[in-house]
Amino acid sequence: MKLMVINGPNLNMLGIREKGIYGTRDFKDVCDYIKGEGKKRNHEMTLLQSNIEGEIINFIQRAYFESYDGIIINPGAYTHYSYAIHDAIKGADIPTVEVHISNVHAREEFRHKSVTAPACIGQLCGFGEFGYIMAIYALENKVQNKS
Amino acid sequence: MKLMVINGPNLNMLGIREKGIYGTRDFKDVCDYIKGEGKKRNHEMTLLQSNIEGEIINFIQRAYFESYDGIIINPGAYTHYSYAIHDAIKGADIPTVEVHISNVHAREEFRHKSVTAPACIGQLCGFGEFGYIMAIYALENKVQNKS
Amino acid sequence: MKLMVINGPNLNMLGIREKGIYGTRDFKDVCDYIKGEGKKRNHEMTLLQSNIEGEIINFIQRAYFESYDGIIINPGAYTHYSYAIHDAIKGADIPTVEVHISNVHAREEFRHKSVTAPACIGQLCGFGEFGYIMAIYALENKVQNKS
Amino acid sequence: MKLMVINGPNLNMLGIREKGIYGTRDFKDVCDYIKGEGKKRNHEMTLLQSNIEGEIINFIQRAYFESYDGIIINPGAYTHYSYAIHDAIKGADIPTVEVHISNVHAREEFRHKSVTAPACIGQLCGFGEFGYIMAIYALENKVQNKS
Amino acid sequence: MKLMVINGPNLNMLGIREKGIYGTRDFKDVCDYIKGEGKKRNHEMTLLQSNIEGEIINFIQRAYFESYDGIIINPGAYTHYSYAIHDAIKGADIPTVEVHISNVHAREEFRHKSVTAPACIGQLCGFGEFGYIMAIYALENKVQNKS
Amino acid sequence: MKLMVINGPNLNMLGIREKGIYGTRDFKDVCDYIKGEGKKRNHEMTLLQSNIEGEIINFIQRAYFESYDGIIINPGAYTHYSYAIHDAIKGADIPTVEVHISNVHAREEFRHKSVTAPACIGQLCGFGEFGYIMAIYALENKVQNKS
Amino acid sequence: MKLMVINGPNLNMLGIREKGIYGTRDFKDVCDYIKGEGKKRNHEMTLLQSNIEGEIINFIQRAYFESYDGIIINPGAYTHYSYAIHDAIKGADIPTVEVHISNVHAREEFRHKSVTAPACIGQLCGFGEFGYIMAIYALENKVQNKS
Amino acid sequence: MKLMVINGPNLNMLGIREKGIYGTRDFKDVCDYIKGEGKKRNHEMTLLQSNIEGEIINFIQRAYFESYDGIIINPGAYTHYSYAIHDAIKGADIPTVEVHISNVHAREEFRHKSVTAPACIGQLCGFGEFGYIMAIYALENKVQNKS
Amino acid sequence: MKLMVINGPNLNMLGIREKGIYGTRDFKDVCDYIKGEGKKRNHEMTLLQSNIEGEIINFIQRAYFESYDGIIINPGAYTHYSYAIHDAIKGADIPTVEVHISNVHAREEFRHKSVTAPACIGQLCGFGEFGYIMAIYALENKVQNKS
Amino acid sequence: MKLMVINGPNLNMLGIREKGIYGTRDFKDVCDYIKGEGKKRNHEMTLLQSNIEGEIINFIQRAYFESYDGIIINPGAYTHYSYAIHDAIKGADIPTVEVHISNVHAREEFRHKSVTAPACIGQLCGFGEFGYIMAIYALENKVQNKS
Amino acid sequence: MKLMVINGPNLNMLGIREKGIYGTRDFKDVCDYIKGEGKKRNHEMTLLQSNIEGEIINFIQRAYFESYDGIIINPGAYTHYSYAIHDAIKGADIPTVEVHISNVHAREEFRHKSVTAPACIGQLCGFGEFGYIMAIYALENKVQNKS
Amino acid sequence: MKLMVINGPNLNMLGIREKGIYGTRDFKDVCDYIKGEGKKRNHEMTLLQSNIEGEIINFIQRAYFESYDGIIINPGAYTHYSYAIHDAIKGADIPTVEVHISNVHAREEFRHKSVTAPACIGQLCGFGEFGYIMAIYALENKVQNKS
Repeated sequence: MKLMVINGPNLNMLGIREKGIYGTRDFKDVCDYIKGEGKKRNHEMTLLQSNIEGEIINFIQRAYFESYDGIIINPGAYTHYSYAIHDAIKGADIPTVEVHISNVHAREEFRHKSVTAPACIGQLCGFGEFGYIMAIYALENKVQNKS
Repeated sequence: MKLMVINGPNLNMLGIREKGIYGTRDFKDVCDYIKGEGKKRNHEMTLLQSNIEGEIINFIQRAYFESYDGIIINPGAYTHYSYAIHDAIKGADIPTVEVHISNVHAREEFRHKSVTAPACIGQLCGFGEFGYIMAIYALENKVQNKS
Repeated sequence: MKLMVINGPNLNMLGIREKGIYGTRDFKDVCDYIKGEGKKRNHEMTLLQSNIEGEIINFIQRAYFESYDGIIINPGAYTHYSYAIHDAIKGADIPTVEVHISNVHAREEFRHKSVTAPACIGQLCGFGEFGYIMAIYALENKVQNKS
Repeated sequence: MKLMVINGPNLNMLGIREKGIYGTRDFKDVCDYIKGEGKKRNHEMTLLQSNIEGEIINFIQRAYFESYDGIIINPGAYTHYSYAIHDAIKGADIPTVEVHISNVHAREEFRHKSVTAPACIGQLCGFGEFGYIMAIYALENKVQNKS
Repeated sequence: MKLMVINGPNLNMLGIREKGIYGTRDFKDVCDYIKGEGKKRNHEMTLLQSNIEGEIINFIQRAYFESYDGIIINPGAYTHYSYAIHDAIKGADIPTVEVHISNVHAREEFRHKSVTAPACIGQLCGFGEFGYIMAIYALENKVQNKS
Repeated sequence: MKLMVINGPNLNMLGIREKGIYGTRDFKDVCDYIKGEGKKRNHEMTLLQSNIEGEIINFIQRAYFESYDGIIINPGAYTHYSYAIHDAIKGADIPTVEVHISNVHAREEFRHKSVTAPACIGQLCGFGEFGYIMAIYALENKVQNKS
Repeated sequence: MKLMVINGPNLNMLGIREKGIYGTRDFKDVCDYIKGEGKKRNHEMTLLQSNIEGEIINFIQRAYFESYDGIIINPGAYTHYSYAIHDAIKGADIPTVEVHISNVHAREEFRHKSVTAPACIGQLCGFGEFGYIMAIYALENKVQNKS
Repeated sequence: MKLMVINGPNLNMLGIREKGIYGTRDFKDVCDYIKGEGKKRNHEMTLLQSNIEGEIINFIQRAYFESYDGIIINPGAYTHYSYAIHDAIKGADIPTVEVHISNVHAREEFRHKSVTAPACIGQLCGFGEFGYIMAIYALENKVQNKS
Repeated sequence: MKLMVINGPNLNMLGIREKGIYGTRDFKDVCDYIKGEGKKRNHEMTLLQSNIEGEIINFIQRAYFESYDGIIINPGAYTHYSYAIHDAIKGADIPTVEVHISNVHAREEFRHKSVTAPACIGQLCGFGEFGYIMAIYALENKVQNKS
Repeated sequence: MKLMVINGPNLNMLGIREKGIYGTRDFKDVCDYIKGEGKKRNHEMTLLQSNIEGEIINFIQRAYFESYDGIIINPGAYTHYSYAIHDAIKGADIPTVEVHISNVHAREEFRHKSVTAPACIGQLCGFGEFGYIMAIYALENKVQNKS
Repeated sequence: MKLMVINGPNLNMLGIREKGIYGTRDFKDVCDYIKGEGKKRNHEMTLLQSNIEGEIINFIQRAYFESYDGIIINPGAYTHYSYAIHDAIKGADIPTVEVHISNVHAREEFRHKSVTAPACIGQLCGFGEFGYIMAIYALENKVQNKS
Repeated sequence: MKLMVINGPNLNMLGIREKGIYGTRDFKDVCDYIKGEGKKRNHEMTLLQSNIEGEIINFIQRAYFESYDGIIINPGAYTHYSYAIHDAIKGADIPTVEVHISNVHAREEFRHKSVTAPACIGQLCGFGEFGYIMAIYALENKVQNKS
């Protein structure tokens, strides 16, 4: 499978900001880990990060034009208000899994609502960086069940 | 008249995404159609699109500095939460018409509220790509009534 | 086309009440203007006004029984609470355009919500009496696209 | 690991009720599948189901007294109002993963809120019955990271 | 001290847009004034402006990587919905003061709520461009009290 | 018993509008059916319909002055906002049964609330035109229990 | 002064309905009492009643066209939702006093809000039928203060 | 027809608790009355009662497995919050009628909302124990109309 | 009659603060006017003012202990949140009329709700200082109707 | 007196779960303590616990049938949503005191509201297990005041 | 122990106002009763009452400066909105018990919320004047458990 | 300049209560510090404190009558509900700066809303006692810009 992993705002600060919540591994390590696990399972992996809402939309549209098989997205704080990203996912029509590193349900009220998840096939949160690998499994499973 | 037409996030996916809602004509065709109709009526037409909220603000500010006579804007999903675009329109003080291709009132609850429309002279929705042409008529009429 | 134009409560006071918001042309003039523009474009025009919610429903039902091709409706303040008019429009199943003279989004909070618009093909507001003419264009365009 | 899998109300109707949402495999098959996958990975698996809120609390308390290493719970509709199950999970202090077969974020408003998830380590939804297997992976990963 | 002053969307239109609210001095002058006052007090001053939410996040991250001692931020309309900027400030962990030129409490309802202020050490509003100078004093005072 | 059956706005369009929801029998047939069933059971039946809120109030007041034994009312969309009809029913003090053809609880949010039902002895919905006959039974039963 | 007294829905049932709340004098007596008191004070009195929202609007418009000096209105239950009557009062621009027989603040929640009062010069409630006479005094006082 | 009548929490206290609201006939008598009326009309009647939410779900599932033709359910206070019973009714896909002895619309605010009714074919309330018999008529009518 | 007139916070600034809203007559003049009108009508008049919520409660309790026949109260801004004054009026059980100089319904949202009015016999607003005289009439009328 | 003490969900985990909130004494000890104190004061004590909402209703109904003089109930998390337990208490009509070990007002928002307390004679919270003894005192006092 | 008992607004009207709710014993008697019971148990008792919010804060601060061991407070209606009293209790850091004579949960909606209770160790309501004695027991128990 | 500094409820407990939030300097020291800084800058300083809402209003009115040039106010918890103080500031029409020692935006929800700030020229929070000095600077700047 050809998979795109999109990380949203502030995720490039992993290992730096709020380690109590997000863990101590830094962003580059987390990316290497995801890429490595993906490659072990024979997937073509593209990892992208942006702090800019509209660039994330550009990534999703690129996934459409370059025929990706799946998207794994952690929209960061945009999760809670970016109807524009919601529309982008809906429009691209590629199986998309929403991932959050922390358990958003156990944090501030505003993090309980996701406006992007309704456009995804599913969502998972609270499993640290392993969540990205779980998302790969989910996309694999999705494809197997289709064929 | 010197008119700027601004399309917001995901509108470049017209004809691709959710054809049931947005129609089957693709974005380039829609742009050509708008430009063509505008030129027929002797207007100088500038068409811009961006997925990035702040670039849309840049476009609006440029309209101010380059003395445009009118703006036609479809802010896409930003319509529903971008107070920053609202402020940009209010600041530019150029007659602006908000256009939506689909009838936003007949869709999800979150699409019923526009935070950008209060800064415009008017809003129209539900008339497909013809809505942009209607907006041209509205700006012409606005100008005629002034003089 | 056979078109019905329905004006709701207080619109017969145009040119009299709150001229700052609704303009200075009086209601008869506005009606003549709409009728004139409609006839120029070869439409059969019926203009009706009532302050009574139920009579507006009667008009809409009459449009159904007399096979009108389109309805242009300005439901005045009923826009914001008349689910009965909403049901009437939905039931008649005739392309209907909702028009407001002022930009309702820039006025009191209660005018931001339309309970009738979801039953229409589209809505427009803020373009003064020219809005009715824009609605004619929209209905023409609707018909042309169908055939 | 010694794992308890708890299914809440109506999940015993899998394959019978609303197949469009929950799939066509029946509950016994789904249980066998989960148990099988768990055993393959050398876990001791206990699968329980009840329609009764208080019995689910009993299951969770039993997990505490019998020293389970992890709980996988699908609280069905209780997810959305059972503060009592929330308190039970919090009290048991065993790593717990909340699973939903369908993407609850894409369904009715009342299914968007989980009152039980804040007491869990994480939540996942939308991945069909494979979600239970993902939960096993998550618990394994949790344990590995601790040691 | 090494201070970064970040201005958000539309603040580059100062002296142009809505002078009744924001005053008549233009943006360049305001920037010169802030820079001048800062230099008089021996601070190293970096002034940045962007209409793009994500670029503002980039600025804040740069402040972290380049070891700034303080940030003065006027997030413009993003104040009211950008949880992403909130997260960025929280992550950078640099003393940050939020400034608004106008008294936001005396304006529209939506301007009463700040989602970014909880991540700052304090907020001030209503003091025109002098507010930026007050923010410098506040950061000086903060540092003195620490040592 | 002397019974008045009042149908509110748009119910005269039965069999015409939205047949999926309201069935295919037309309004005259439904009225004949209700009248017939009522007469079979030896009741004096008066059937009235109006799209006008105030006329419905007039009907209810007439029921008071002409000493009707019971009212069966389907207030249509007025159910959801007509406190004036609520007051009329309360004032008339005649046993009144509220009937809805469709199951209002399974439709749009705004149809879940009835402001008129608190003034009635009871409400029933979802049983098609047979609901009116059920209402007759309910009024008979009410009278028998009193005597 | 030329005064119009408008009574809204169900007020013609005074003395009949809910005597505990509205008193035992019947509507004709109350009207005679108001007319009598008005004439004693040398006013030209026109008393109107309707259960129909739109007819009340017609009355208000008639007051405009026939140059009444003041309106005393008890909009009954329409008080709580008729933005159309609100608009009519605002448009007529005649000093209008809103009267309620009972103390609406001490009754059901929905009666606490008046959507019509903001268009009046003042409101009074809780003083029984004497409230109408108080309204006459208020209009006299208003006129005296002007001259 | 094979009919199941399910009574929820506290209904076994009929004739004991709050007689002003629920009447003076005791629960056994009411059950005998329902059973009797059902048998007179040649139906096979099963009457069940439980105070336990999950047992009510069990009853509904049993109705599915034992091929009942209809369910009459009075979910008592569970009506207002048991999404689990809602899901059970939806899953069983047997025509179900919701019955309330008292007029829930005329009681406390929390009793105005039914979360179970959207899964039923219809709801009735306010007709005392006769409501159960009306529900039998409704189910008969439903079946006749189908065949 | 023995009447107490209580003015709440900031009313002693009449004629000084916000003359556009409250008029230009100063507080002493208004008090003299009220006292004079009351005496003309043979009432014993006590006028009190305090900015302190609890002192206003003390006044009301004193009215109880000194057997006043009526209270006229303008609780100023306490109207909108002082449940303590509400309780005091309710406890004193003396006919009380609430007066507001301006039309509170036409001002800020928070002034639309009165928490004190439910404890009074009635409320009036919008009639300037004449409102206090109207309140005297209302109390006279109340007493006459009783005897 | 014959007293029933009912403990709801998770209270059997006292001394095990969340000791910081609920204290370290285990459930059996707490029960012995309550029973002991009750017996010292010559009461017949019955202590019951269940995690199942409906069983708690069964206990309350049993208290009715076995003529208990008082009920002391800690409904645990059911306090916040069990209208069914509310109805049971109301139906049983036995003096009932609601007890919470922790100060619910100082915890999560959802614990601030009690739907069961309105059916009790009183509520107390925050006094640890001594709260149960206080409830005994309250019931004794209640009885003494009656006789 | 040195105990301060603070009664808030209108409690000095006990036995006078609303006897149905608050009982017939007058305030002096209730104070004597509390003082007497306190002295019997060897406590130094100070009883204070004020209708003034700020004086109640003064009392609480005095309790701090004079080293009281406990406060029993009935803040009357201030319970529901006085964040200032909340802050005073929090600041004094003396064990404080909130008492209400009536069961506030069974009265008007606004009495269900306490803004002061979160700053207390516990709250009790509904037990009449005996509630104050229960509060003494609670404070004794608190002290015993500490030592 | 002649400046009045008003401190509201509980601020006299500075250095005593909640030192983690408000700092350890006691109230007298803070007052001396403010007075000293003010005098250094040649201002006439009056410092007042009260726990009583109405006395704070008295202070503000005194500022009006004694022609103060500016007010610095920390209304403590009254900030969040005292519309009466809001009205007093508005009425006095003296430049007023609202100061909070802690960052209210980062604390409890109820502290996020200020009802007094809309009447001030600006607000600042989070800068400890230095905030009062910043307010002096702001008032100086205000005056300089005017002249």
